[in-house]
Amino acid sequence: MGNTFGQLFRVTTFGESHGGGIGVIIDGCPPKIDISEAEIQQELDRRRPGQSKITTQRKEEDRCEILSGVFEGKTLGTPIAILVRNKDARPEDYAEIARKFRPSHADFTYEAKYGIRNWQGGGRASARETIGRVAASAVAKKILSIVCPESEIVAYVAQIHEIAAKINRSVVTMEDVEKNTVRCPDGAAAKKMASLIEQVRVDGDSIGGVIECVARGIPPGLGEPVFDKLEADLAKAMLSIPATKGFEIGSGFTATRMRGSEHNDPFEMRAGKIRTATNNSGGVQGGISNGEEIYFRIGFKPIATIAYEQKTVTASREQTKLAARGRHDPCVLPRAVPIVEAMAAIVLCDHALRQKAIGSPGWSE
Amino acid sequence: MGNTFGQLFRVTTFGESHGGGIGVIIDGCPPKIDISEAEIQQELDRRRPGQSKITTQRKEEDRCEILSGVFEGKTLGTPIAILVRNKDARPEDYAEIARKFRPSHADFTYEAKYGIRNWQGGGRASARETIGRVAASAVAKKILSIVCPESEIVAYVAQIHEIAAKINRSVVTMEDVEKNTVRCPDGAAAKKMASLIEQVRVDGDSIGGVIECVARGIPPGLGEPVFDKLEADLAKAMLSIPATKGFEIGSGFTATRMRGSEHNDPFEMRAGKIRTATNNSGGVQGGISNGEEIYFRIGFKPIATIAYEQKTVTASREQTKLAARGRHDPCVLPRAVPIVEAMAAIVLCDHALRQKAIGSPGWSE
Amino acid sequence: MGNTFGQLFRVTTFGESHGGGIGVIIDGCPPKIDISEAEIQQELDRRRPGQSKITTQRKEEDRCEILSGVFEGKTLGTPIAILVRNKDARPEDYAEIARKFRPSHADFTYEAKYGIRNWQGGGRASARETIGRVAASAVAKKILSIVCPESEIVAYVAQIHEIAAKINRSVVTMEDVEKNTVRCPDGAAAKKMASLIEQVRVDGDSIGGVIECVARGIPPGLGEPVFDKLEADLAKAMLSIPATKGFEIGSGFTATRMRGSEHNDPFEMRAGKIRTATNNSGGVQGGISNGEEIYFRIGFKPIATIAYEQKTVTASREQTKLAARGRHDPCVLPRAVPIVEAMAAIVLCDHALRQKAIGSPGWSE
Amino acid sequence: MGNTFGQLFRVTTFGESHGGGIGVIIDGCPPKIDISEAEIQQELDRRRPGQSKITTQRKEEDRCEILSGVFEGKTLGTPIAILVRNKDARPEDYAEIARKFRPSHADFTYEAKYGIRNWQGGGRASARETIGRVAASAVAKKILSIVCPESEIVAYVAQIHEIAAKINRSVVTMEDVEKNTVRCPDGAAAKKMASLIEQVRVDGDSIGGVIECVARGIPPGLGEPVFDKLEADLAKAMLSIPATKGFEIGSGFTATRMRGSEHNDPFEMRAGKIRTATNNSGGVQGGISNGEEIYFRIGFKPIATIAYEQKTVTASREQTKLAARGRHDPCVLPRAVPIVEAMAAIVLCDHALRQKAIGSPGWSE
Repeated sequence: MGNTFGQLFRVTTFGESHGGGIGVIIDGCPPKIDISEAEIQQELDRRRPGQSKITTQRKEEDRCEILSGVFEGKTLGTPIAILVRNKDARPEDYAEIARKFRPSHADFTYEAKYGIRNWQGGGRASARETIGRVAASAVAKKILSIVCPESEIVAYVAQIHEIAAKINRSVVTMEDVEKNTVRCPDGAAAKKMASLIEQVRVDGDSIGGVIECVARGIPPGLGEPVFDKLEADLAKAMLSIPATKGFEIGSGFTATRMRGSEHNDPFEMRAGKIRTATNNSGGVQGGISNGEEIYFRIGFKPIATIAYEQKTVTASREQTKLAARGRHDPCVLPRAVPIVEAMAAIVLCDHALRQKAIGSPGWSE
Repeated sequence: MGNTFGQLFRVTTFGESHGGGIGVIIDGCPPKIDISEAEIQQELDRRRPGQSKITTQRKEEDRCEILSGVFEGKTLGTPIAILVRNKDARPEDYAEIARKFRPSHADFTYEAKYGIRNWQGGGRASARETIGRVAASAVAKKILSIVCPESEIVAYVAQIHEIAAKINRSVVTMEDVEKNTVRCPDGAAAKKMASLIEQVRVDGDSIGGVIECVARGIPPGLGEPVFDKLEADLAKAMLSIPATKGFEIGSGFTATRMRGSEHNDPFEMRAGKIRTATNNSGGVQGGISNGEEIYFRIGFKPIATIAYEQKTVTASREQTKLAARGRHDPCVLPRAVPIVEAMAAIVLCDHALRQKAIGSPGWSE
Repeated sequence: MGNTFGQLFRVTTFGESHGGGIGVIIDGCPPKIDISEAEIQQELDRRRPGQSKITTQRKEEDRCEILSGVFEGKTLGTPIAILVRNKDARPEDYAEIARKFRPSHADFTYEAKYGIRNWQGGGRASARETIGRVAASAVAKKILSIVCPESEIVAYVAQIHEIAAKINRSVVTMEDVEKNTVRCPDGAAAKKMASLIEQVRVDGDSIGGVIECVARGIPPGLGEPVFDKLEADLAKAMLSIPATKGFEIGSGFTATRMRGSEHNDPFEMRAGKIRTATNNSGGVQGGISNGEEIYFRIGFKPIATIAYEQKTVTASREQTKLAARGRHDPCVLPRAVPIVEAMAAIVLCDHALRQKAIGSPGWSE
Repeated sequence: MGNTFGQLFRVTTFGESHGGGIGVIIDGCPPKIDISEAEIQQELDRRRPGQSKITTQRKEEDRCEILSGVFEGKTLGTPIAILVRNKDARPEDYAEIARKFRPSHADFTYEAKYGIRNWQGGGRASARETIGRVAASAVAKKILSIVCPESEIVAYVAQIHEIAAKINRSVVTMEDVEKNTVRCPDGAAAKKMASLIEQVRVDGDSIGGVIECVARGIPPGLGEPVFDKLEADLAKAMLSIPATKGFEIGSGFTATRMRGSEHNDPFEMRAGKIRTATNNSGGVQGGISNGEEIYFRIGFKPIATIAYEQKTVTASREQTKLAARGRHDPCVLPRAVPIVEAMAAIVLCDHALRQKAIGSPGWSE
């Protein structure tokens, strides 16, 4: 259980890092939407490892195949199944991990929960699982481009370790983000980040950071109080991404040190629309979008698998040491950027369809 | 939509702050569990306003009535419906709000989404909605006490504005928390907080802060990868509470400035069990509990309704000013403590039942 | 679990026949729909017992109260909670049933499943539970009247024991149905049915029959292949009504004795629309409505609780005999007519909203 | 939407009759259950066409591949994805159908709903979709064999057109069923049925019938009132199978002509257990299994695609005639037997896991 996300745009992922393949079924996609393997592949290529020396050297082609739900380039309204074959398995890389629990990885908890695990790579806990999410997001973005034609989602690295970037979230574009391998649109900060990541790789260590995501052009009215508030579903979506430890929207934890008179976003009329003068709310009030920019930040821990020697125990409960081999990212954030975008698109698409069902004419139009 | 939470322990809340009443239906509660209105009332009394001068002066009795699902003091396995009548309505308090959107409140977004709203109080967006959640949590805690007999959930105020408390989360008890009206177990900090809140009330302003919650004694194995990871469901639960802006588990955003070699929690054998030497993970690895303390922090913004005069617009789109009247909390955190606990109990109970269904014998036993 | 029905128009019922009350929460109702307690009461009055000598003499007022979700006569888009208090409890009527399992009733299976049951009346298994469904259907019908303005649902008694009625399902109206207490629009048959039911009452026995339901004016396109086919959801809805044993749509079991060349409904153009010349399909093809009349039949068994002495066992597993006392319908069908209509309306409303979400442009328009 | 079935054992199918492939994702399968491609293939082979001259001559190999969720022959607790490639496409067979709506087929309704359809074969409406269900049932049966070790599900053809078989449902085995190509364990009737089917094929026509299914050894307590009654979920499952028009459980429509005193199943003590003397209930009372045989009947219409020339309209709304070419079953029932069994197994497995979650102590044990 737990492998399906969304109410109307329902994404079910499957697959371990090793085995037949990884993929997704999308149920609830409206019919007659143009979609091609090439468009999905483009999204997948952004999350693929092996793109530069700062990410893992594992070489995967990750070619996607649409198995169903699309006919002559258009969606049928039936489930869209997308498959990416696993390749490049080197089980010998994982021989040691088969017996020793990696500290802070999912090895131990999968054993505790299931009494069994695919020890080849991370199995189901591998970040490779997110291929299905990213593939689904290509479809979600297409739907959003129809239902919310003004919408645009951009994610980027905002901080690596102590290096914080300066980014104007209202104007930053995906092109800005893709300019460098760190996916940080602040060029100066990006350079420092790249050096630090390379240093950490040499050290056999890993490093965390913050990804920020902004969704512009989302109309007022998305979000379903009380439990499926837009920020609640975004929080769940983001915390379901491997290696995440925190989520904040709008002013976030900074709000905890503010007074209402500073924090409140005064309403004003602008270009004939009700707008807010500031945006501490992060585009969401009472769980519903208010038409302003939706922005949020996700905290990533340094990933668990490191070459650095650590204390741990074996599956047979003996104390031991482990220095992981294999190809691992020293810093997962550059590759996580498209995953954050993907989950944001899936959440917004689902809520857009939910809102369509109850047919709000939209008070503010 | 969006008023149901949980997969097996399903909580559906209903009710506006004004109107017939507020309540909840719990579906999926196992049979033959002892529960009484008195036990539910005890939980409700903890979240009730009017308990001290630092919280809202609105006087509500909030007497709960079990309408169904319980017979001769025991659950029947059928839906448990609990109702709390609304009383003490003073619509005149809300006359101004009927026309003017409160900045950063849900007034505007509800109008934008639904084209209609109950302007008396916050309607559905009122914190009064959480009565249903707290009532349900009394049942969830009972189930947890059977399924996870060692379990214990304690929440407390960890920070108000700039005042941070010092609390040993491994030993803090609910009694410690209830010692003062701020619900901060650090007595010295609590005093400062109380003074600050009183000052803010006098100013007609409001103030935010942080609540921390710890769940001890949760066995390994709870949480359903990949989307229903334990931290993902906790994040959603917490961000569904009014006035929340952020969530972090374990090391949280601090992890973003750490290296893997510092952050990883080494495994060790302790008292015959696999344990971690540190707990940056916050008791969850790969979305599944690892048997350590689960702890997380929730950031609350200062609440929106303040007496302070602010710029806003009217429902007919004219620029205006608003200084809210009525009885409002200057600081929601003391009353939010039992709500955080409630949502934590509901998430853990749901996952405990989900795990029961697939019957993991538990590798670590 | 199992007390919620529907995907977008979500109906959750609660309540036992004895205890605080019976009711329903409707989640997913669009905003700004006119609804009043009077309209809901009108539906409830149709299913109320005590209307004539052929139904149970139990006198219930069954006054409904809207607890939430409606403001100034209009839906808010928030959950609509409706409560009907239980009255007129006479536990002494049930003293014997507390110890002896009624043959073919739910007494034994509830004990087997839950290890506990509310033995006062049928508890949760009482037909009184359907109050919640009927209340919800008043809202569903309102939504249908907006989304499918041509739609009309009529149910009626088509057969009691061996007495079959002759009814033209294409023209029968609710007024025709309500003309007599049997709710059979064939007046001659109705008379015979009424006599038979009265005879069966005198015998202390009970009797079954068939209810037919027709939904006219449903546009093409409702139904979600493959599992949520319109006929599949109708079948589930109808078999969830107490005392039902069978469901057939269109030609039903008669189709099993036909050839394709007889059974197929040829398409033809009529008034500019694609129509079928015959309607063995019952308005549904491939799980999706085709614009023709949707009609189906539900088989009801004679109800279990009879005054007639029967062999049974006690809760302590001793052989015994039981002749039930109390007020029981000899024939449930007249009162089940509005329940069948209610469930049909709920299914169609849910599917209409689901179709709205994916935005059927409507090929045939 | 609508492509997922089950609450805890969740089956999501995908695929059209033509295109990349057909398959299923199973979410919620407990870990450490032995399963192999060979076992799944065995179930698939039973539903495969081309086995005899009485079924369609379309030659498909339908080799299944497990893509995920199984490691070294055991389930991981993660989603099990199973894929069967489509082969043997002959689009030219479908050229005519691309323009002309087959009477009583899903062609028109898919167009009406989605505005698009895969006209190659039945697309998503093809019976080929049931491959995913049958594959999933191999897993469901494995789980049932652990959770309900006494359980056994047998389905068989009980009637073809006017030919009714005589079968003792309490002793019939799958071996009896598989003895002949008609899958009717009454040898004499089977012979007549085979002749009739062959005759109908020669006529270019099709023919309907009834499949009966019995589940023995199901313990008391499965089924979730009120909406997810066992018979309600079975009814939905069966009516979701292509070409079905009716469902009845136990006495079914025969009950409509009975009195309570005849129909009620008296309780008696037998071998220390509470049993019923008769079984008109069909093993289900109040929506919950009572430990007796669960048996039900499903009415199948003659399939729509026939060589016989029929009146219809084109997609461009012109009156025309159609005599379908290609390879089509004159009678779908023999091949539908394993599909009925599959859906029964999926429903019972799901309810067994649901019951496990609420921990029935089992009153009757």
